[in-house]
Amino acid sequence: MEGLIMNYPLTTNTILEYGNSVYHHKKIITYLPNGTRHEYSFGDMYKRCKQLANALTQKFGISKGDMVGTFAWNHGAHVELYYGISGIGAVCHTINIRLSGNQIEYIINNSEDKVIFVDATLVPLLEKIAPRLETVEHYVLINAPEDFKTTLPNTIHYEELIAEQSESFDWPELNENDACAMCYTSGTTGLPKGALYSHRSTFLHAFALMAPNAANIGNTDIVLLIVPQFHVMAWGFPYLCLLAGATMVMPSSNLNPDAIIRMLQAEKITKANGVPTIWLGVYHAMKMNPPKEKLALQEYLVGGSALPKSLIEGFEKDFGIKGTHAWGMTETSPLGTVSRLQTKHGDLPESEKLVVRAKQGTAIPGVEIRIVNEDGTLAPNDGKTMGELQIKGAWVISSYFKTNNQESFTADGWFKTGDVCTIDTDGFMEIKDRTKDLIKSGGEWISSVALESALMAHPKIKEAAVIAIPDEKWVEKPLATLVLVNKEDKVSADELIEFLSRDFVKYQIPKDYYYLDEVPKTSVGKFDKKEIRRLFAEGKLI
Amino acid sequence: MEGLIMNYPLTTNTILEYGNSVYHHKKIITYLPNGTRHEYSFGDMYKRCKQLANALTQKFGISKGDMVGTFAWNHGAHVELYYGISGIGAVCHTINIRLSGNQIEYIINNSEDKVIFVDATLVPLLEKIAPRLETVEHYVLINAPEDFKTTLPNTIHYEELIAEQSESFDWPELNENDACAMCYTSGTTGLPKGALYSHRSTFLHAFALMAPNAANIGNTDIVLLIVPQFHVMAWGFPYLCLLAGATMVMPSSNLNPDAIIRMLQAEKITKANGVPTIWLGVYHAMKMNPPKEKLALQEYLVGGSALPKSLIEGFEKDFGIKGTHAWGMTETSPLGTVSRLQTKHGDLPESEKLVVRAKQGTAIPGVEIRIVNEDGTLAPNDGKTMGELQIKGAWVISSYFKTNNQESFTADGWFKTGDVCTIDTDGFMEIKDRTKDLIKSGGEWISSVALESALMAHPKIKEAAVIAIPDEKWVEKPLATLVLVNKEDKVSADELIEFLSRDFVKYQIPKDYYYLDEVPKTSVGKFDKKEIRRLFAEGKLI
Repeated sequence: MEGLIMNYPLTTNTILEYGNSVYHHKKIITYLPNGTRHEYSFGDMYKRCKQLANALTQKFGISKGDMVGTFAWNHGAHVELYYGISGIGAVCHTINIRLSGNQIEYIINNSEDKVIFVDATLVPLLEKIAPRLETVEHYVLINAPEDFKTTLPNTIHYEELIAEQSESFDWPELNENDACAMCYTSGTTGLPKGALYSHRSTFLHAFALMAPNAANIGNTDIVLLIVPQFHVMAWGFPYLCLLAGATMVMPSSNLNPDAIIRMLQAEKITKANGVPTIWLGVYHAMKMNPPKEKLALQEYLVGGSALPKSLIEGFEKDFGIKGTHAWGMTETSPLGTVSRLQTKHGDLPESEKLVVRAKQGTAIPGVEIRIVNEDGTLAPNDGKTMGELQIKGAWVISSYFKTNNQESFTADGWFKTGDVCTIDTDGFMEIKDRTKDLIKSGGEWISSVALESALMAHPKIKEAAVIAIPDEKWVEKPLATLVLVNKEDKVSADELIEFLSRDFVKYQIPKDYYYLDEVPKTSVGKFDKKEIRRLFAEGKLI
Repeated sequence: MEGLIMNYPLTTNTILEYGNSVYHHKKIITYLPNGTRHEYSFGDMYKRCKQLANALTQKFGISKGDMVGTFAWNHGAHVELYYGISGIGAVCHTINIRLSGNQIEYIINNSEDKVIFVDATLVPLLEKIAPRLETVEHYVLINAPEDFKTTLPNTIHYEELIAEQSESFDWPELNENDACAMCYTSGTTGLPKGALYSHRSTFLHAFALMAPNAANIGNTDIVLLIVPQFHVMAWGFPYLCLLAGATMVMPSSNLNPDAIIRMLQAEKITKANGVPTIWLGVYHAMKMNPPKEKLALQEYLVGGSALPKSLIEGFEKDFGIKGTHAWGMTETSPLGTVSRLQTKHGDLPESEKLVVRAKQGTAIPGVEIRIVNEDGTLAPNDGKTMGELQIKGAWVISSYFKTNNQESFTADGWFKTGDVCTIDTDGFMEIKDRTKDLIKSGGEWISSVALESALMAHPKIKEAAVIAIPDEKWVEKPLATLVLVNKEDKVSADELIEFLSRDFVKYQIPKDYYYLDEVPKTSVGKFDKKEIRRLFAEGKLI
């Protein structure tokens, strides 16, 4: 017997219509690549989504299931693309601008994008590969000067495209399981793989994020969306903010620490998201040049890789700003876990509270997590046993786009993350490593993440990346690459070994330290250990 | 093209499993009818749900789609019934203990309950009608002494029933659209009608409630569930608290103001829900006997009928406790709207903020509202035009149980609430009246709710209920019934007319005032205007 409840599909159109009906007066503020500030309302944005929908269907002949690419920074127009493309039943494929030309070429051909919307400043990246793009019929130029010159074929300016369209458009009836958006993984191993989200997964993920235990965002928040829209849909924040009625501030390419600090101040930002690299930079810039007035920023949500405990502590002690750890992947929409203190932690000393907060946290409702031993058996949630993290839930992919390869999924329907972690008795998960980054020395596992986090707590060290290198006696041993806060202010290996010996036993501590100007990063800002291993193998670490 | 996302049905089992996996250490605290305090954990409750599932399926032969009734106060065992009954695919039918014997008999026969779980203290109510209940095979006694005597046939004690069962049970795979729970409307007009909720609607409604813009509940909250579990599933709070990891405090029959105040103090309650009658009582008791220490209570969510502006103000000024208005119906699971101040209200004077907060608020994401003129055309959202409120959404019923009568639904799929209200340009809805309670005097509508709210702002008046009475000249005119704070301290009609003339024009102001010891209430605590009209018609108002 079924419940007698209305059929109400959970779609991005529902989100857009809700945002317009209840929060039409709320603002989207963009700092454009040229530095100018643009502001308009959800209501204005709503009308432009409808104009875009008319343009897509009538001018370009885009229909349900077609792929439409975006190659753009975070800004109002990109939000319109999220809603306008998905709204007509097409798929909004956000292309990661930081991938290599080869990878970008591959994913555009693989996804079969028919139209690509591209920021003027990013056109040069596409021009190089455009001749080899097999399916793209039109390029739409965003924020381009009128006399903009490009070798891209069949171009039209975004403003011109929508200006001629009507502001009225009836959204088609969509099934909530229809595809809505696609992101490719960053492809650090092998080719990028497409994660194809549904309307339902997008809606539920954004719904889950509002909760106080998750991103905790409501209608009095002003949110800075630092996570790029080309990176796992900006963690769902462009949807979340319409549901929550929160003001959105979009930085486009203004992502250096000083620019971010200026936006935090000028817009009275209350919440923000971003990867650790961003927050590392902001923290050091703020230490160098402390803001005269306390920022309105209450909390930043950080994920993508582990945020060192020392940074969580520093931000809070020095500036009264709370860092909240989250964990997720492209394959999980992305949010899987968030680390928030619970009532029972209230009596812990601050140092132990910090240990809890430095974990990746508990699953949020809508997903489940477990850890599994190498032989496939369930590992215990004892906070000690490491196992591969597996996840299932309402916004986790069931397979990759255009492949029948199910090797990332278990027979009983869980996604194998490739992350190695522990889960404690209270359900708090802590990432220890990527499977491929674990160091196995003398038969024991060493966590590169734990070493990096400890090294980054040293006052002179800004970034640390640890890899495994071959060792005759122990099979593997750790090697650390370091970036100094002040380049001239080196630290001796002996001092570092002494420093680490507080938390690690002898065999776990690296003997080899190398200094870099910058740790190589992947397209999404994570430490690129493949590149560090290459530098080491080629004798280029000195 | 469908998204490539896991099939993850939104069921109450998902909620229960989540609560047990992440928040097994959280507590459910019950103040039993005899006044003793019982405490156990979500983890304990989880095991008992599985024992209950075994008992239902194996001992009683309950299977998917069967109806199982509960006739009980708010307590831990009733939470187990919510999850245990729905978890096996049966329907948890919560019977309103405050209905008349005839109505209770009707709804049990209409729903075809096979088993009824009944609190010992409520057994006498069922004994009277048991001989006429056609489908009930077993009665399970909750919180009954061992030597409990009853004329109910086929009884077993709840503890005995589950004690003999295994704690392991595999939940069946359910479709999220399967029926999960049922409540009947209170039947103030005609026979009670069943609202049959699905697993999906129950999950989504609870999910929506967590948000800061809705009930704003997280894992540091301690929630007092005053709204009865037999009244629209306690507004979804037994589900919400597991998703949010919030401690649940259940008052059972301890609902008088002093008992509630003692629980607020002893358990350090941070959030609570309840109808205005409850909060009126608590407020006046606190005024009489102010608590020595400030309560931990931050906010109470209030709905069911309009909370007078004066009470919102009094609670906040006198005790620093925020009252948040919500609106909903049995047919809407119930939550439809919540009234929270937005950023733009920040600069308003306090008196105008209060005007906003006294409205019923904006739709929460997942539902949509509109108002309609008598001729069926859409009324404007101008904050002035009154129209019938219509609602649609993911937790709104599409028809009543066992009836093809669709007169409460529009052709385009909206539910007609029977409430008359305005919606302003910002989407804030304000209930003016029930369609049937509106007073039409001299061709103009008068809102009985507005008059009641204004009268209750008078310091000597505790409750006010206004009805329409026939008038030769104006067709109808308002009549007010009043309950005084202090019975001896009467107010003259002239003083009241003067008092109301600040906010109302002459023709809107009642000339006739009657004093009652108590305003008659419906089974869910609303003013029973049908009863007041009867008293008037029979000349019993003096």
